[in-house]
Amino acid sequence: MNQFINIAVVGLGQVGIYLLNEIKTKKKDIELKTGKKIKIVAISAKNINKKRKFKVNKKIFFKNPLKIFENIKVDILFEAIGLSDGISKKVVETALKNKIHVITPNKALISKHGDYLAKLAEDNNVNLEFEASVAGGIPILRTIKEGLVTNKISKVYGILNGTSNYILTDMRDSKDSFANVLKRAQKLGYAEPGNPKLDLNGFDAFAKVRILSALAFNTKISKHKCLMEGIEKVESKDIEIANQLNLRIKLLGISQIINGRLFETVHPCLVSKNSYIGNVTGVMNAVIIEGKPVGESILQGEGAGPGPTSSSLLSDLLSILRGNIKKTFWYF
Amino acid sequence: MNQFINIAVVGLGQVGIYLLNEIKTKKKDIELKTGKKIKIVAISAKNINKKRKFKVNKKIFFKNPLKIFENIKVDILFEAIGLSDGISKKVVETALKNKIHVITPNKALISKHGDYLAKLAEDNNVNLEFEASVAGGIPILRTIKEGLVTNKISKVYGILNGTSNYILTDMRDSKDSFANVLKRAQKLGYAEPGNPKLDLNGFDAFAKVRILSALAFNTKISKHKCLMEGIEKVESKDIEIANQLNLRIKLLGISQIINGRLFETVHPCLVSKNSYIGNVTGVMNAVIIEGKPVGESILQGEGAGPGPTSSSLLSDLLSILRGNIKKTFWYF
Repeated sequence: MNQFINIAVVGLGQVGIYLLNEIKTKKKDIELKTGKKIKIVAISAKNINKKRKFKVNKKIFFKNPLKIFENIKVDILFEAIGLSDGISKKVVETALKNKIHVITPNKALISKHGDYLAKLAEDNNVNLEFEASVAGGIPILRTIKEGLVTNKISKVYGILNGTSNYILTDMRDSKDSFANVLKRAQKLGYAEPGNPKLDLNGFDAFAKVRILSALAFNTKISKHKCLMEGIEKVESKDIEIANQLNLRIKLLGISQIINGRLFETVHPCLVSKNSYIGNVTGVMNAVIIEGKPVGESILQGEGAGPGPTSSSLLSDLLSILRGNIKKTFWYF
Repeated sequence: MNQFINIAVVGLGQVGIYLLNEIKTKKKDIELKTGKKIKIVAISAKNINKKRKFKVNKKIFFKNPLKIFENIKVDILFEAIGLSDGISKKVVETALKNKIHVITPNKALISKHGDYLAKLAEDNNVNLEFEASVAGGIPILRTIKEGLVTNKISKVYGILNGTSNYILTDMRDSKDSFANVLKRAQKLGYAEPGNPKLDLNGFDAFAKVRILSALAFNTKISKHKCLMEGIEKVESKDIEIANQLNLRIKLLGISQIINGRLFETVHPCLVSKNSYIGNVTGVMNAVIIEGKPVGESILQGEGAGPGPTSSSLLSDLLSILRGNIKKTFWYF
């Protein structure tokens, strides 16, 4: 219990700040549950003076996150910058090369560079963990990799984008247009105010599908093109007609093996009003796993937001603190 | 990859036999995912000659399971005998004292002697794992201990007894009496043919509630008396009246903290026809967790049967093979 495990948090947006507050509040609990002492030794963001819900300690602040590794010993890095390339990739890469464990909620990064980064982690004998990258607070990756580990999985699918599900639910309830509902969602913080495109065109769900496939089917992250369609073209009239037919429109991400081949799709689906998936509303995410011998398993929870995301980021932290070094992917 | 991890399976009923077949089929996969070689070195049951869906190797058969420890080196023991006391307790106790990891689906044993056995495991630096003891194939204990580990949980509840849920569902669908529906369930293998009492009087669900409480609230397993009522007194008339009121009768196990005090109850509840829990039918189990900051999480899956049970037993095996030595409970 004497030596500290040094932690760095790079990216001080909503998620980074929520995470820092959680670590501060739950420090004692984390230390009791792992037998390790932890310390935040570096934080980084573009702007030191931005107003944040956390008292930034200027002594440990780095404008350039890459400078962290040159100056202090870090054991575990949280990357909360976002985007698949640029500085976020560079930071993760550098950390892994320096034998630093990395925890990230960045689905764009993992779905694009996951194989490469996982290899880097393995070569350096550290963990690359990304529970928070799929379905927010639902521990879905852990469930596939550990809880259901010996099952033969044939299909994983579900509602993977909370923004789209919120908009579809609101369109049904309010009978309002896509454009108006989107505006409301942006005001409420359920859709990004600037550019919500990646949520609405299916890209975000597709990145998650690719991560799920790799873990469920022990394959490299697929690169081939598949059907990807978001909810941008769904009109109030579609919702109304579906309703008359006792159906609901849901944006589903689906990964399945058919005749030995992997199929990955994201598109709006018509599902029965009385089905389980038809009743998952608002920002909720739900993942359904079909496996043998376990049968059908369902996991549902809040798919986005800094709280659920932090829940998953911290589950990764505790796993690393307990010394559970694991391969990121298994493809043999 | 050279030395074998020696495994013993004690109790060759439905679960024990299914497990042995699974280990045989998935041996290569297990070894790839853990880097360890495994070997079944001992099996035990009362009767060597009973007809079983597995070719029993008489060379490794023990009529008295306690003799195993005197004769061969075992690293991991599966206990699949059942019951809270007698030989099952003796076997688990002896194994832990001999520094052997123990994996068991035995909720009666853990809910009665879990604290004592966990201490024994800790003192001997081995694992005591029992994922299969609650909600069959659903990795609910792992989810509480790992996936949602840093959340402040306030309530855990759900449908924890598949037999009761099957009977309540069939009574609603068939409008038949409790006695007739029970007979059908017994024929189909959803209720024990001999003595289904422990499923029907709420005891089985209550044992699971106690295990869930200990993990969700970091307390010792509670001993105090609480409301425990099963479905034995539910009549077709009750189901009919509930239906007229747009309600369903469900046997719920509930564990929650109210004003700092733990409340554990099992009893038939009236729930809305349109609620999530009202639509969990047949032998399905469902567990709902309310936590901060994750919000409400739901896990649903098959709660019983040798397949789902084996799925959870093997998840524990892989966790041990990966070297994840962990405390069983956390109470500080």
